[in-house]
Amino acid sequence: MRQEKDLIGVHEVPDDVYYGIQTLRAAENFPITGYRPHRELIRALAMVKGAAAEANMFIGALNPKIGQAVVEAAKEIIQGRFHDQFIVDVIQGGAGTSMNMNANEVIANRAVEILGGKKGEYFRVHPNTHVNMAQSTNDVFPTAIRIACFNVGNDLLEVLESLRQSFLDKAQEFDSVIKMGRTHLQDAVPIRLGQEFSAYAHMLGRDMQRIKGALRSLEIINMGATAVGTGLNADPRYIEKVTELLQQWSGLPLGLAPDLVDATQNTDAFMEVSGSLRTLAVNLSKIANDLRLMASGPKTGLNEINLPPMQPGSSIMPGKVNPVIAEVVNQVAFQVQGNDCTIGLACGAGQLELNVMEPVVVFNLLQSLDILRNVTRVFRERCVAGITVNAERCRVMVETSVGLVTAINPHVGYEVASMIAKEALEYGRPVAEIVLEKGVLTKEELDVILNPYEMTRPGIAGVELLEGTKSKS
Amino acid sequence: MRQEKDLIGVHEVPDDVYYGIQTLRAAENFPITGYRPHRELIRALAMVKGAAAEANMFIGALNPKIGQAVVEAAKEIIQGRFHDQFIVDVIQGGAGTSMNMNANEVIANRAVEILGGKKGEYFRVHPNTHVNMAQSTNDVFPTAIRIACFNVGNDLLEVLESLRQSFLDKAQEFDSVIKMGRTHLQDAVPIRLGQEFSAYAHMLGRDMQRIKGALRSLEIINMGATAVGTGLNADPRYIEKVTELLQQWSGLPLGLAPDLVDATQNTDAFMEVSGSLRTLAVNLSKIANDLRLMASGPKTGLNEINLPPMQPGSSIMPGKVNPVIAEVVNQVAFQVQGNDCTIGLACGAGQLELNVMEPVVVFNLLQSLDILRNVTRVFRERCVAGITVNAERCRVMVETSVGLVTAINPHVGYEVASMIAKEALEYGRPVAEIVLEKGVLTKEELDVILNPYEMTRPGIAGVELLEGTKSKS
Amino acid sequence: MRQEKDLIGVHEVPDDVYYGIQTLRAAENFPITGYRPHRELIRALAMVKGAAAEANMFIGALNPKIGQAVVEAAKEIIQGRFHDQFIVDVIQGGAGTSMNMNANEVIANRAVEILGGKKGEYFRVHPNTHVNMAQSTNDVFPTAIRIACFNVGNDLLEVLESLRQSFLDKAQEFDSVIKMGRTHLQDAVPIRLGQEFSAYAHMLGRDMQRIKGALRSLEIINMGATAVGTGLNADPRYIEKVTELLQQWSGLPLGLAPDLVDATQNTDAFMEVSGSLRTLAVNLSKIANDLRLMASGPKTGLNEINLPPMQPGSSIMPGKVNPVIAEVVNQVAFQVQGNDCTIGLACGAGQLELNVMEPVVVFNLLQSLDILRNVTRVFRERCVAGITVNAERCRVMVETSVGLVTAINPHVGYEVASMIAKEALEYGRPVAEIVLEKGVLTKEELDVILNPYEMTRPGIAGVELLEGTKSKS
Amino acid sequence: MRQEKDLIGVHEVPDDVYYGIQTLRAAENFPITGYRPHRELIRALAMVKGAAAEANMFIGALNPKIGQAVVEAAKEIIQGRFHDQFIVDVIQGGAGTSMNMNANEVIANRAVEILGGKKGEYFRVHPNTHVNMAQSTNDVFPTAIRIACFNVGNDLLEVLESLRQSFLDKAQEFDSVIKMGRTHLQDAVPIRLGQEFSAYAHMLGRDMQRIKGALRSLEIINMGATAVGTGLNADPRYIEKVTELLQQWSGLPLGLAPDLVDATQNTDAFMEVSGSLRTLAVNLSKIANDLRLMASGPKTGLNEINLPPMQPGSSIMPGKVNPVIAEVVNQVAFQVQGNDCTIGLACGAGQLELNVMEPVVVFNLLQSLDILRNVTRVFRERCVAGITVNAERCRVMVETSVGLVTAINPHVGYEVASMIAKEALEYGRPVAEIVLEKGVLTKEELDVILNPYEMTRPGIAGVELLEGTKSKS
Repeated sequence: MRQEKDLIGVHEVPDDVYYGIQTLRAAENFPITGYRPHRELIRALAMVKGAAAEANMFIGALNPKIGQAVVEAAKEIIQGRFHDQFIVDVIQGGAGTSMNMNANEVIANRAVEILGGKKGEYFRVHPNTHVNMAQSTNDVFPTAIRIACFNVGNDLLEVLESLRQSFLDKAQEFDSVIKMGRTHLQDAVPIRLGQEFSAYAHMLGRDMQRIKGALRSLEIINMGATAVGTGLNADPRYIEKVTELLQQWSGLPLGLAPDLVDATQNTDAFMEVSGSLRTLAVNLSKIANDLRLMASGPKTGLNEINLPPMQPGSSIMPGKVNPVIAEVVNQVAFQVQGNDCTIGLACGAGQLELNVMEPVVVFNLLQSLDILRNVTRVFRERCVAGITVNAERCRVMVETSVGLVTAINPHVGYEVASMIAKEALEYGRPVAEIVLEKGVLTKEELDVILNPYEMTRPGIAGVELLEGTKSKS
Repeated sequence: MRQEKDLIGVHEVPDDVYYGIQTLRAAENFPITGYRPHRELIRALAMVKGAAAEANMFIGALNPKIGQAVVEAAKEIIQGRFHDQFIVDVIQGGAGTSMNMNANEVIANRAVEILGGKKGEYFRVHPNTHVNMAQSTNDVFPTAIRIACFNVGNDLLEVLESLRQSFLDKAQEFDSVIKMGRTHLQDAVPIRLGQEFSAYAHMLGRDMQRIKGALRSLEIINMGATAVGTGLNADPRYIEKVTELLQQWSGLPLGLAPDLVDATQNTDAFMEVSGSLRTLAVNLSKIANDLRLMASGPKTGLNEINLPPMQPGSSIMPGKVNPVIAEVVNQVAFQVQGNDCTIGLACGAGQLELNVMEPVVVFNLLQSLDILRNVTRVFRERCVAGITVNAERCRVMVETSVGLVTAINPHVGYEVASMIAKEALEYGRPVAEIVLEKGVLTKEELDVILNPYEMTRPGIAGVELLEGTKSKS
Repeated sequence: MRQEKDLIGVHEVPDDVYYGIQTLRAAENFPITGYRPHRELIRALAMVKGAAAEANMFIGALNPKIGQAVVEAAKEIIQGRFHDQFIVDVIQGGAGTSMNMNANEVIANRAVEILGGKKGEYFRVHPNTHVNMAQSTNDVFPTAIRIACFNVGNDLLEVLESLRQSFLDKAQEFDSVIKMGRTHLQDAVPIRLGQEFSAYAHMLGRDMQRIKGALRSLEIINMGATAVGTGLNADPRYIEKVTELLQQWSGLPLGLAPDLVDATQNTDAFMEVSGSLRTLAVNLSKIANDLRLMASGPKTGLNEINLPPMQPGSSIMPGKVNPVIAEVVNQVAFQVQGNDCTIGLACGAGQLELNVMEPVVVFNLLQSLDILRNVTRVFRERCVAGITVNAERCRVMVETSVGLVTAINPHVGYEVASMIAKEALEYGRPVAEIVLEKGVLTKEELDVILNPYEMTRPGIAGVELLEGTKSKS
Repeated sequence: MRQEKDLIGVHEVPDDVYYGIQTLRAAENFPITGYRPHRELIRALAMVKGAAAEANMFIGALNPKIGQAVVEAAKEIIQGRFHDQFIVDVIQGGAGTSMNMNANEVIANRAVEILGGKKGEYFRVHPNTHVNMAQSTNDVFPTAIRIACFNVGNDLLEVLESLRQSFLDKAQEFDSVIKMGRTHLQDAVPIRLGQEFSAYAHMLGRDMQRIKGALRSLEIINMGATAVGTGLNADPRYIEKVTELLQQWSGLPLGLAPDLVDATQNTDAFMEVSGSLRTLAVNLSKIANDLRLMASGPKTGLNEINLPPMQPGSSIMPGKVNPVIAEVVNQVAFQVQGNDCTIGLACGAGQLELNVMEPVVVFNLLQSLDILRNVTRVFRERCVAGITVNAERCRVMVETSVGLVTAINPHVGYEVASMIAKEALEYGRPVAEIVLEKGVLTKEELDVILNPYEMTRPGIAGVELLEGTKSKS
């Protein structure tokens, strides 16, 4: 055990750990979820520390020997080392100070080692004075959150594009499958299955645009703001340099916020990102619901499509297979919406110069990004890509349906068409039969008008038959 | 125009209105929703004012002539007069002070008239000194909210009981209708439609219990707490008396809170009530979803039941009828959940001695109660009571389903049953046929085991056939 | 009474009303909230009907005499006539069909009158055949929602710009007022009040950008999609023309959706707009919270600023004035967040070709837009514009604070500075005094370093003093 | 590797693992959160399996040798063994079937070992046929959820009682500390700090009652319902016995649901529990907010109380200490509210005979219970128990405040009191001074009336002075 000391007093720290007294106190103070910080957040913190050390060396504020050791330690963390030394719970008080100090301490101790010292010899490299030089949790932590979310967000966009592509592929595959369109779950008019899948692709494209737009709001960082955005203790040359360097460390097109006070106290960018994820979640859930409905059955449901069977569906009912992948999409969607609720509450709790609730924000935001990315991949690979259609079943349902009557609407008027529809339903007779019986249209006219494929394209089926009647309507 | 004066200055007030300067200022300050206060809230405020005047007269603090005029004015409001004089927007700053002052001013001016004076002659009856005597908005307003919500809540319970009864009636009517049970929207095992309707009734019964329990938390009021719960300026004899009198005015079993400081600052009882309504909303929505699903079709859906047609369903598709009443149930459910969200946020915004966000709480809570009551009535009358069943369709679906295979599970084991199910699905053959072909069971055994009605009751179909085999399993 | 007839049967309709049987049925079916449709939604429906009639005339599908009467009737509604004839409850089943039919019926009857007929003579102008020609609720209603929300959204943006400007004005007015910055509600480092107000302006600017972006997603409409997006019964020439004409009718830069099936079934654009409003609401709430906190007191709070007194604050405490305008901002924010919850739930309930929950979506979305616009105006006029500062009080607090110690950090290191801070707090002594006593810095150095104004700007106070020491750190 | 086979096909399973093919498929299908099932859920599943095996042996359906091995394996799991064999992600499709099968497979393989066989020899003990005998996921999983939540809920109640007690202790300790009460964050009237802490205790007491009530709804289980609540394949004697046995296994007062169809498909009990936790969260958050506000400062805030310092508060500001424990309470409260949102969405997604979204429900519900329990403990130990008061500061603020003027209200009327208050504020003069100067009351009278301690108790200060004036009012 080594002894460490802070404002509160002395505390023993195990000899072999890289974190120090402040990390340890935080770990003791916050035994809440048992979850450790996200890998990408740890990496982003290390990027910030590395870039800041370089900037401080650049302006001559930081001894290069110390600075280089800090840079080296930061790089090791980015490569994945020492992540087990980040032990503070994801839900923590203190606006991320504990996370920042955890990074400061691990990097300081690792830098001390690099310089040939022993852990705890902070006179060589000090967590606050050197690693945190010209920084505050209040610029470091939001900046790290942004980098981490940006990176996971980009992963999400990539898998979303794959999913979108899969829907487009299926749209093409199913382009000629005519099925009954349903509104209010009631028979409406014919549609092609390909059109439905194409609509899913379009919707996802819109989601991707929204998420991209929201991620752009994460590019604006506040390094140099220090404690309250006024830049106290941050040299203007440092402020200019650190963002530029952090661009290189992160590989992201980061820019400095035009108003650092605003950028330090406000978290609306996180709400914006979360909001875009919520909309994606709701849209994915809609698709999952549709697929579950279309695949319902096999004997007593719609049974229009088949989802690939992934696992036995029941511990008691032999042979049962359930749409488990679609269901997990729904559940992820619920989780993301709940996370968005948490994020909204936390972002609404800012007071004066700071929103101290950022830890719970980043926990939820990264979780939403993670699980959306994971479920999107699974959804594509284990569900969408393997969907097959029961085209014959779809065709038969169209033909037995009364919805075809809509096409004769322009030819006979809404009221006559209503009567025909009512009769067709009441006596279970085909629409065409009644139309012919009543003599409102001829067989030749009907053949043109009641062509289901034509009904899935814009226009009035048999519009040419109307030419002579136009002036009457 | 008459001139009135307050802390802020002088303001003209139209001669013919019963409200005064403070109401007018509030109306000007809060042009937010355009919605006026709920009728039951106005009535509840009048009850509070009447009871307080009587209590103040009882302890000798209020001149009986003035007091009687206040009581009379309050009674008129309870009977429905002067409600158009309550003009402050439902969303208002000030913790309800404006609503309270609106009541104080209307009652004062009406009492002045009763005493033969002219509106604005507050030396006769003063809104604060007399009508608000020994009261503060901070005890008056929460108390009035509770009374109002309690009353509308009781109306809700009444219509819920009718709906529950309707489901029980239908459960009996449909008790012998065997249909396919579905889990994951996939064919499971047979169930009776009556069992499903009975389950709805049971669920609603639980909702009613929850709502009743939650409403009981509204019975605890804080009259006499005055500004912060310490009872400053409220005579102990008054405190004791006013709750007793308010019981009579309201007809409700009200009781005084054991800790008035707590009762004045905290609003968790409103969250509790709203939470119980949210659960009801979700449950009603589940029922509505089920009914929409079972009534889907008529030709390309499940088509197990028919909801009574209430209006044409489409402006373009002749003959289409939609489940509009079930849909409005869903929408009310969404509204109630959103209201619950607002209520949660507002109840979370209490600070120190008060939660000043009560106006938006009561607006949402009363709306939730109102629309749930209204939609429950409509749901029963225009949907549930008129539901009919397509029993033949239900029967056919059971027979074509593979789900029956579950019943042979105890006889042949899960693995053999799985194989049979798989084959039945793959080749579209009846389960019984395959079983016989494979010789795993005899026709006689199958007739006993695959009886759908028996499958809707607890027990192992053909359990007696197992007797000899028990020791082997 | 006149007799009207539909699919369900015959119903009497009062002679003098412009709506017809379908409207009446809907009014009877949905006695839910008691709220009537939004004025802008009624106007937008009329725009759609007018543009559709013109497009139908253009392609020769609609008799010009009938068409012109429809156009004229639509224009009257846009100008504000007949709004009392729109009687269907805002929460209604049927995906807006009842709203659409209400418009169809009112316009048809008015057009009949214009053509010299009597209400109910639908052979002259028929609600479905003529007014709804080539349309479906499923393209008309979403399009009308978009136009209505766009218009109210633009109003909101206008008042937001005024509010933003007010904060900028105040930022300039308060630019030299030094006050204590607070993080975690704990003394941090000095900041200028002007910086805080400038941050509010920046935040609102971001909100405006977000809302503008979201509103752009409303410009994409689906006229011509008809029932399920396939365009059945809509002539391609009509589809092309109607969007162009609707641009003129609405004055908005509308465009046709690239995928009409997608555009007809999905409602994510509404979630996007609502999400942007939610973020605005949270941001406004943050500002309101800060103002309430800074104005707390007057004697036992922070008392840094004064909000203009708008009304007496208490029915029992004389002289009390409350921050009622800020409070109503908070409450509107809660309402908007609850509305967003409702909207999210409703948008998540789409099934297959349609989301039938749009009525509750538009009710909540327009309410959010309305109340945000209203409260923003009130906030600016009755609160922000009149804020004054207690500069002396602010100055004194800075000077008594220990937060100044941060500025000596770069000069003496974090650990020494911590010790000084601890001592200052423990014994209530000024930081400077202890620094001098300990001899860590000279008086001349301290005068440079502890200049509060300098502390509100980027840089290390007294950085030049560090020049010689740099290499040591 | 051993080969296992199911409906889908063959899959290799590592030789040394206790889970089998279905667990493995599920682990592959659901790589979502990376979180493993909750310890208490695993234990509860084992209890269910043990009780079911005993019940099946009791009715003679299960070979005692096999049954005893199952019972033994279940007991080992309850004691904490093999938890690492539960590898299915917390968010999973399939309504919990994968969790149930994971338990079935682990227990089967362990029982096989106990019987001297090798893992995978399911002919000895089969996961479905024997371990899952007479059960379905649809009765097993909800039952296990209930037991697990009940147990963690009881832990929560225990720590809540400690916290409540701490507040009572502090209420007594601070009973004589007079401070300024604040409403709207504005000076109101005096209150005692002890009264505030007592109010917190009362509020928590109410929360405990609510949670207890909600937990009672978890006591109702549906063992024997099997797939859809009809009890197919469950012998009536088994149904009766298994609940009784499960009472013993769990030590909980479980009872069988009166309607098993209802109990199988509906999840409102989980919403009820979550709702009670949400209200607790909001209440805890309110307390945390109050404490942070009262402890604000130390120099530029209210500074009425001191929270125990737990860790340095800033990486840049030396000496800063933040209310980190209160802040983590807030964040847990946000998380719980978000979880409640997820739970509401999931519980709203039930369809027909089942709600397949239960996995995400139980994940969130157990997390809420866990983190509330953890944070409550920390809150008590590291914050509330160590709170101290700055009594002198509190006293001074009361005396400088204008709020005392309320006490003279009954003596001079609301309007005169208002004038005095206004003057006191405007010129910064004490209320008493102005009152005396204006001669409205004598010094002797004032001494009686303006006694702050008296103002914190019910009654009119100096009521005896009013005796002669009563008839005038």
